[in-house]
Amino acid sequence: MIEVAKQSFYKQGFMKAIGAKLVSIEKGVVIIECKLNNKLTQQHGFFHAGVITSIADVAYGYAALSMMPKGSDVLTVEFKTNFINAAKTNKIVAKGSLVKSGKTLSFCEGVVTDEKQEIIFATMQSTMICLNRK
Amino acid sequence: MIEVAKQSFYKQGFMKAIGAKLVSIEKGVVIIECKLNNKLTQQHGFFHAGVITSIADVAYGYAALSMMPKGSDVLTVEFKTNFINAAKTNKIVAKGSLVKSGKTLSFCEGVVTDEKQEIIFATMQSTMICLNRK
Amino acid sequence: MIEVAKQSFYKQGFMKAIGAKLVSIEKGVVIIECKLNNKLTQQHGFFHAGVITSIADVAYGYAALSMMPKGSDVLTVEFKTNFINAAKTNKIVAKGSLVKSGKTLSFCEGVVTDEKQEIIFATMQSTMICLNRK
Amino acid sequence: MIEVAKQSFYKQGFMKAIGAKLVSIEKGVVIIECKLNNKLTQQHGFFHAGVITSIADVAYGYAALSMMPKGSDVLTVEFKTNFINAAKTNKIVAKGSLVKSGKTLSFCEGVVTDEKQEIIFATMQSTMICLNRK
Repeated sequence: MIEVAKQSFYKQGFMKAIGAKLVSIEKGVVIIECKLNNKLTQQHGFFHAGVITSIADVAYGYAALSMMPKGSDVLTVEFKTNFINAAKTNKIVAKGSLVKSGKTLSFCEGVVTDEKQEIIFATMQSTMICLNRK
Repeated sequence: MIEVAKQSFYKQGFMKAIGAKLVSIEKGVVIIECKLNNKLTQQHGFFHAGVITSIADVAYGYAALSMMPKGSDVLTVEFKTNFINAAKTNKIVAKGSLVKSGKTLSFCEGVVTDEKQEIIFATMQSTMICLNRK
Repeated sequence: MIEVAKQSFYKQGFMKAIGAKLVSIEKGVVIIECKLNNKLTQQHGFFHAGVITSIADVAYGYAALSMMPKGSDVLTVEFKTNFINAAKTNKIVAKGSLVKSGKTLSFCEGVVTDEKQEIIFATMQSTMICLNRK
Repeated sequence: MIEVAKQSFYKQGFMKAIGAKLVSIEKGVVIIECKLNNKLTQQHGFFHAGVITSIADVAYGYAALSMMPKGSDVLTVEFKTNFINAAKTNKIVAKGSLVKSGKTLSFCEGVVTDEKQEIIFATMQSTMICLNRK
């Protein structure tokens, strides 16, 4: 399903529009990064909470999809983001890890950090549902 | 603080980039809408969960800011979004309402719907913190 | 399914132990209340956040179950609680309402208030899954 | 503040009532466990979601309090729990870890597992606020 996830990523107009890059995808772990530009900012010029959450959501979705049976598709049921530090940085990196891959539901969690993965900007939990496209 | 909120909205590069429009802002209630285009889509061509969450986050932030003392600024502490129905629509409307405006923390909740406010795409809860800039 | 929900409520040892009372159950709306005693308190003598969340969780679960097909069972997938005001009161009332009853997942939301439903102690969102026992 | 946290734990009537035990408390990490009995069950005889959440909430609160200045008190702002596996076990163990200890807000996360810490029953994120009692 890793190839399927890659193809799906590049079909997302929103990921292209914000310049998100799929750095790596393995079974249950996905990394996505995004460079700052003036289309991604909140009122103080930092990364917008919505951008931070968006790349984390996508990382989590593909972490879940990577473990699903062939022919599956994934949708986000819900997510929750804690904003730990203001994202005053030039690049954000979202790492999503699967906690459990169930038949119907998958649970993911992860962090969004700076490029060196030293400063945590956000932590996130999410629930994904497996749709069988058959 | 309503004028302050308006000015702050238009300083957000990300809101401009996604074409979000501040429809109305009153004390404790803010409405933001966004039209679909191919920069806002997920892999099936619907509104991306990240876009839905982003405009709701901003609506909630200004709903909170609208009730804060002059000279305040607002930051998102955390939010949680439930995705109720896939956002197969041409326009999404986020309505954020303040549940409590505290001295330090404000609690908001609301929905993201279609233009007629008939179909709920997402519900969201969030916590905002008041920063006193002076 | 309303009768099934009632029977299920009284099978919950924890609900009995905390003295929770199923006040009403209709299609998609459930009310549960609980009187304060010294087994339900946090360190300041108010209702414990865990008690507040517990009765809300149960109200939401049965709000979801009330709309499910005969023979179904319900489990909590996740919930999120915002604690708006300290629960300095003699009785808490949790009202859970269904936002959407899906084939697999149901989304609920609601509030925990004082007896007069004037002071909001907590708001909560949750996701429930329908298990078909047959 | 570790001694203060211990004393506070034993003032919680609800923790006593459910038989929760403060296993360990270090700076930023707290472990609480609880044995199953028929006062803690949901309709199938497993640990109730409310009990799981309650001991995690308390673990997180004291993980936060352990890092706060002398004279502080802690309140839960919000939490979010994902129920990963049904808690079919005789004992649950909640481990709460501090992600960030801020001046006003602290962010915690952790898991609730079986006694051997092999099966994850729940993951949780929470936000705590520091109240200065003086």
